[in-house]
Amino acid sequence: MSRNTTKQRGLFISFEGGEGAGKTTQIDRLMTWVHARNDPVIKTREPGGTHGADEIRNLIVTGDGDRWTPETELLLLLAARRDHVARVIDPALDDGTMVLCDRYVDSTIAYQGIARDLGIDKVRTLDAAWGSAGTLPDLTFLLDLPPEEGIRRAQLREGADGETRFEGLDLSFHHALRQGFRNLATEEPERIKIIDASRPVDDIAAEIISLTAQKLAG
Amino acid sequence: MSRNTTKQRGLFISFEGGEGAGKTTQIDRLMTWVHARNDPVIKTREPGGTHGADEIRNLIVTGDGDRWTPETELLLLLAARRDHVARVIDPALDDGTMVLCDRYVDSTIAYQGIARDLGIDKVRTLDAAWGSAGTLPDLTFLLDLPPEEGIRRAQLREGADGETRFEGLDLSFHHALRQGFRNLATEEPERIKIIDASRPVDDIAAEIISLTAQKLAG
Repeated sequence: MSRNTTKQRGLFISFEGGEGAGKTTQIDRLMTWVHARNDPVIKTREPGGTHGADEIRNLIVTGDGDRWTPETELLLLLAARRDHVARVIDPALDDGTMVLCDRYVDSTIAYQGIARDLGIDKVRTLDAAWGSAGTLPDLTFLLDLPPEEGIRRAQLREGADGETRFEGLDLSFHHALRQGFRNLATEEPERIKIIDASRPVDDIAAEIISLTAQKLAG
Repeated sequence: MSRNTTKQRGLFISFEGGEGAGKTTQIDRLMTWVHARNDPVIKTREPGGTHGADEIRNLIVTGDGDRWTPETELLLLLAARRDHVARVIDPALDDGTMVLCDRYVDSTIAYQGIARDLGIDKVRTLDAAWGSAGTLPDLTFLLDLPPEEGIRRAQLREGADGETRFEGLDLSFHHALRQGFRNLATEEPERIKIIDASRPVDDIAAEIISLTAQKLAG
């Protein structure tokens, strides 16, 4: 098969990290760069990304924190992912479009596998069979930040008096989550790039664009 | 452990079969018999059975037939089952209460595994790990009826001019489903009892009560 005659599958990039790490900003910066190249690109997010997945997302995020058992919550998340992959991500990639996704499988492993204590291997196995089902990112940017700094930024964003959902959770939880993400990056250094998110926005964007350009160059 | 000092786990009985086979009637008949023994018993149904599972059920059953891919539908069904098992079925059984359930894992295997073509083994494996997760019926009554007879009964129930959802589906689908259920019963003859549902209601009830009494004595 020649690249000239066969449409090349689009690049799939996910963004991971705690709240306040700047995922939204960096996705938009990368998207602007891709647009300037005149390459097709979409941005999407999890949980959600399709009409059906958004309805499942609503089931997950509304109500009390103990509304669902960790197992039910995981199955709902993967039901939403399967819909998202089958109806948005895979068709876009097959069309040669780049996909930028705010959170994906690594969030599920870190939150449900580690923080919700279901076990990394169990979550990864279930996701591989039924959730992402083979559609994994080519590149993942882990926007890494000390939780204390993420809290400070989230507070600024919400306004001085604003309380964030982030604050409601134990700081030790966010430290465990950060360590979980960093461990995943250590396991898969080729795919998951740890990005120091404490630097200025422009510096972070430059590094992400540079790594993306390298990947596109193959 | 002696039965006299340790609370014995309740008996878990599921009812399976196509529409018009009389599951609701037979569940009520068995329940009346258990009540007469002064034994604790609940009846429940799938998909649904808890507040959360009913919300998931609503996602599944509303909208177009192709609203969900078969994989997403299966994950939603098992998310609902996990909630149902964790919050209703297991606590009741642990309390020594008998549980009568209208449809359970065999319906998932027959509908999603066979009719929706996901594969029996794949569905059974996923259910065993994440759905029923070890809580399987002690006894399953498969109310077996030729699909043509089920259609006739469903029509009578809906009124002469009434159209049923049942009618909307191809008759060959219902024959495949019936054969699927019968094959499951052949694989597990100790658990799944094929009940000839073409007989009078009283005869069917007598057989179900007799088999239940045997199991309780067992």
